[in-house]
Amino acid sequence: MGKPVRVIPLGGVGEIGKNCMAIEQGDDIVVVDAGLMFPDQEMLGIDIVIPDYTYLRDRGDKVRGIIITHAHEDHIGALPYMLRDLPTVPLYGTKLTLGLIKTKLREHKLADRTIFREVTPGTPFEVGHFKCDTYDVCHSIPDAVGVTIDTEYGTIVHSGDWKFDHTPVDGRVTDFARLAAIAGKGVLLLMSDSTRAEVAGYTPSERHVGELFDGIMARAPGRVITTTFASNISRVKQIVDIAHAWGRRTAIIGRSMENYSRTAKELGYLEFPEGAIVHAGDIGKLADHEICIITTGSQGEPTSALSRMALGDHRHVAVKEGDTVVMSATPIPGNEELVTRTVDNLYKLGAEVIYDPGARPHVSGHASQEELKLLINILRPKHFVPIHGEYRMLVRHARIAMDLGVDAKKAFVITNGDVLELDDNGGRLGTRIHTGEVYVDGLGVGDVSESVMRDRLSIGSDGFFLVVLTIERRTGRVVAGPDIVTKGFVPEKDAGDLIEEARARILAGLGQAQSGEHLAEVSALRDEIHSSLSSFLYEKTKRRPMVLPVVMQV
Amino acid sequence: MGKPVRVIPLGGVGEIGKNCMAIEQGDDIVVVDAGLMFPDQEMLGIDIVIPDYTYLRDRGDKVRGIIITHAHEDHIGALPYMLRDLPTVPLYGTKLTLGLIKTKLREHKLADRTIFREVTPGTPFEVGHFKCDTYDVCHSIPDAVGVTIDTEYGTIVHSGDWKFDHTPVDGRVTDFARLAAIAGKGVLLLMSDSTRAEVAGYTPSERHVGELFDGIMARAPGRVITTTFASNISRVKQIVDIAHAWGRRTAIIGRSMENYSRTAKELGYLEFPEGAIVHAGDIGKLADHEICIITTGSQGEPTSALSRMALGDHRHVAVKEGDTVVMSATPIPGNEELVTRTVDNLYKLGAEVIYDPGARPHVSGHASQEELKLLINILRPKHFVPIHGEYRMLVRHARIAMDLGVDAKKAFVITNGDVLELDDNGGRLGTRIHTGEVYVDGLGVGDVSESVMRDRLSIGSDGFFLVVLTIERRTGRVVAGPDIVTKGFVPEKDAGDLIEEARARILAGLGQAQSGEHLAEVSALRDEIHSSLSSFLYEKTKRRPMVLPVVMQV
Repeated sequence: MGKPVRVIPLGGVGEIGKNCMAIEQGDDIVVVDAGLMFPDQEMLGIDIVIPDYTYLRDRGDKVRGIIITHAHEDHIGALPYMLRDLPTVPLYGTKLTLGLIKTKLREHKLADRTIFREVTPGTPFEVGHFKCDTYDVCHSIPDAVGVTIDTEYGTIVHSGDWKFDHTPVDGRVTDFARLAAIAGKGVLLLMSDSTRAEVAGYTPSERHVGELFDGIMARAPGRVITTTFASNISRVKQIVDIAHAWGRRTAIIGRSMENYSRTAKELGYLEFPEGAIVHAGDIGKLADHEICIITTGSQGEPTSALSRMALGDHRHVAVKEGDTVVMSATPIPGNEELVTRTVDNLYKLGAEVIYDPGARPHVSGHASQEELKLLINILRPKHFVPIHGEYRMLVRHARIAMDLGVDAKKAFVITNGDVLELDDNGGRLGTRIHTGEVYVDGLGVGDVSESVMRDRLSIGSDGFFLVVLTIERRTGRVVAGPDIVTKGFVPEKDAGDLIEEARARILAGLGQAQSGEHLAEVSALRDEIHSSLSSFLYEKTKRRPMVLPVVMQV
Repeated sequence: MGKPVRVIPLGGVGEIGKNCMAIEQGDDIVVVDAGLMFPDQEMLGIDIVIPDYTYLRDRGDKVRGIIITHAHEDHIGALPYMLRDLPTVPLYGTKLTLGLIKTKLREHKLADRTIFREVTPGTPFEVGHFKCDTYDVCHSIPDAVGVTIDTEYGTIVHSGDWKFDHTPVDGRVTDFARLAAIAGKGVLLLMSDSTRAEVAGYTPSERHVGELFDGIMARAPGRVITTTFASNISRVKQIVDIAHAWGRRTAIIGRSMENYSRTAKELGYLEFPEGAIVHAGDIGKLADHEICIITTGSQGEPTSALSRMALGDHRHVAVKEGDTVVMSATPIPGNEELVTRTVDNLYKLGAEVIYDPGARPHVSGHASQEELKLLINILRPKHFVPIHGEYRMLVRHARIAMDLGVDAKKAFVITNGDVLELDDNGGRLGTRIHTGEVYVDGLGVGDVSESVMRDRLSIGSDGFFLVVLTIERRTGRVVAGPDIVTKGFVPEKDAGDLIEEARARILAGLGQAQSGEHLAEVSALRDEIHSSLSSFLYEKTKRRPMVLPVVMQV
């Protein structure tokens, strides 16, 4: 074709979350992943954040397919929104990945009208003119893959989220022979997961988690209550098996935990030994040392099953002295306080809690520096783009690539909206495209604008102070009010004097206003009330409530 | 006297921050520390949090003195508030501690009327009938002390914040001979800092920081810009000395950094080599490799000097390629995102950033497990109370004490408001007293009640929807409005349809109301508007703005 291949990150590059990568050449666009991000603490009231995919929506007729690397929310969470605008675009993914996506789309009533195309690693498929394939990778959810996209200039490799694990629990090791074969054809561009680019060494094997659990189950005097990510199906399998070996039956509790396990079982990805599982309602029939519980709440989510168990608010389980609670997860950045609060609450109930980074049975699903190096050395890519990471992680990852011989001019630290153009003349940055964050709040997608957000931060911090009055249109005389309503500013009961003074000020201001010409306009009157009250309230309280004058005319 | 000694934590026990401990016997109360805590992310608009010291205020005539262990905010930050209610209570502290408190109280116009009593470690002083003394401890600010309080039942030791450092930069090692002497008299109760009770091993010496800085200054090709806590005067001294040794002159930038350094210099706690310091305005006259900058912003505070340097918004310094920025501090829990955002911004400017836990020159000022054990083994206390820590840290610390032979019944994990009574019959918990958190917001101390906070969270998350209308008193006829004002809910420009529909609904509702008797009352009218609009808006948006109807009568 001769046209350059354009690599366009719409999310996940310069941030952790909402991963979404578009690869475009001529009239074809293939998208890899469509994830969400959870809001940070300043995004008041926001449920989730998704990529601004205007670029794709405007080119809907060119988008040939969305390939999903694995079924984590930061890779699939934007699909229920994107598929409304791109309903005829097929989804490509492995069996479990598509199964979990279907469950999700069913909730959004989109499952029936979506086109699913199951892929098998090693069996190529075409998306537009792109010849695509997937390869097995190890990650903290089964059936995860990396993606290869063949172009006329060479192969593009998108790593997905990955680590090397020589002893994975599901026996599915990374296919080094495939990687070598891909390398043999020459890799034009490697895009690789940077989540742990700051971490030296190797990420331990999932097997290590089993060893720690084995010791915990052996020593625990009473019940073992363990919490992990619901999607970590291999972890769930390990815990159930080890509990079973120690004569414990396991109850799986919590909506998302039950959902993931059910889908994984139905699709053949999860099998338990006979008699290893017990219904939550039946654990009362067992002795404490015969019980294991796997539950949601590893991030301290206040509505999770574990949080409710810790508050004595759960139907089947209340945490008590003698329980051993195992946090088999790392707090996601931003959740540290919630998690430590949960640990504190569990300690207050007399439980033993295993949460220390050194002691807790958990390993990351992402590659550390030595693994990142190994992948680069196997594939020997001509160009390199670090993805899935905040800016500093991308820089660290790019430096690793350069250390290993990738030309400094061919290692591109780009961020969302940048366009990398590749052809026989090499790679260069094209004109940036529009992208960004779209807030989802209730039914609204993207309607919470920056100005709404600013208002929320403002009224959330200092409240508002509302003045309502009715004037006679003809004379300008006040016939009702001023009434004052204030929330989030000072307690209403304490506000009496302040409100009286404010009212007197407004009336005094009105007296002046009526004598002059310039305040005859209602808008001028509002401005006058606004400015005089704002400074009055600041002087009195050193707070800046939003002052809102409403003037009605009769 | 025969009366029990009562140990009453008012803050800092079961939390990190707002440290405040009361010790009471008969008619005498002595207080150790009066600190603040910074608000967590849910406390919208709150400036700081201080202990609820109602218990002390109600017994103002019994409070004989406040002993301050060191001048960190979490130990002195509540003084400007407490001293307004307890103006005649003297403050006891070492020279630098009182000097820094004076600076603080001057800003609050309280310095002149406060009674300061300087203490020298090893020279006892009386506070009421209590014979008190202090002893040197190492911490991340000079002139820090632990406190001993002699009672008829034995000595109470309050550790303050501490670590053992055999090679401190100021040469003031912990006085082991004093500790041995205290132990010799028999220790009734040890209360010890639990901040790092979860951390195995020893906290490294401050000397280690110097070694890392030495390497950084040697290698850095351009300017070295380093940020640390302004109060860490030993750190500032080390950096200036090492920079000087490498032929760099140092500029100290940032208001709090300048303030602390000035007071420490004036009081003889900080001395620089001749010519080591350069005025910020003069750094342009030096070559880059001759420059070192020490500045505020180690917590990513958006208004700090470092953040402004990173945004090109600082008068004297803009971060540029070739700069080496050194984060010589740990992010305080809750600040991680701000710090990593700053690191990202610095990388985007092309600076090298040294921030990795493994690489950054920083050590904690708090004792790790092995040091905690050493202190307990030296003092061999009869009773033990872990302080300065969240609940899980207290539990871990109490277990350490029990491992070392403290009787399990004499290791008390208590929290704020608990009362530990000690006498010849041992220790027991008395009746809890009232305590808690007091929010400071602008000029208001404690006026931000729970209901104001709830309002802030509500309107901050979903905004508000205000309906104003004027009715004729006699007929109930609407003569003006309904006018609708909404903020933080949906963008005003998009809200048009919603507002029109809401208005129609209100008018329709009014039509019904006027025909019936039961809505004749204005309050009933308001209730009707509130409930019908709330459900309408939720149905339309799945959001719950605060709905506020205002009905005026003419």
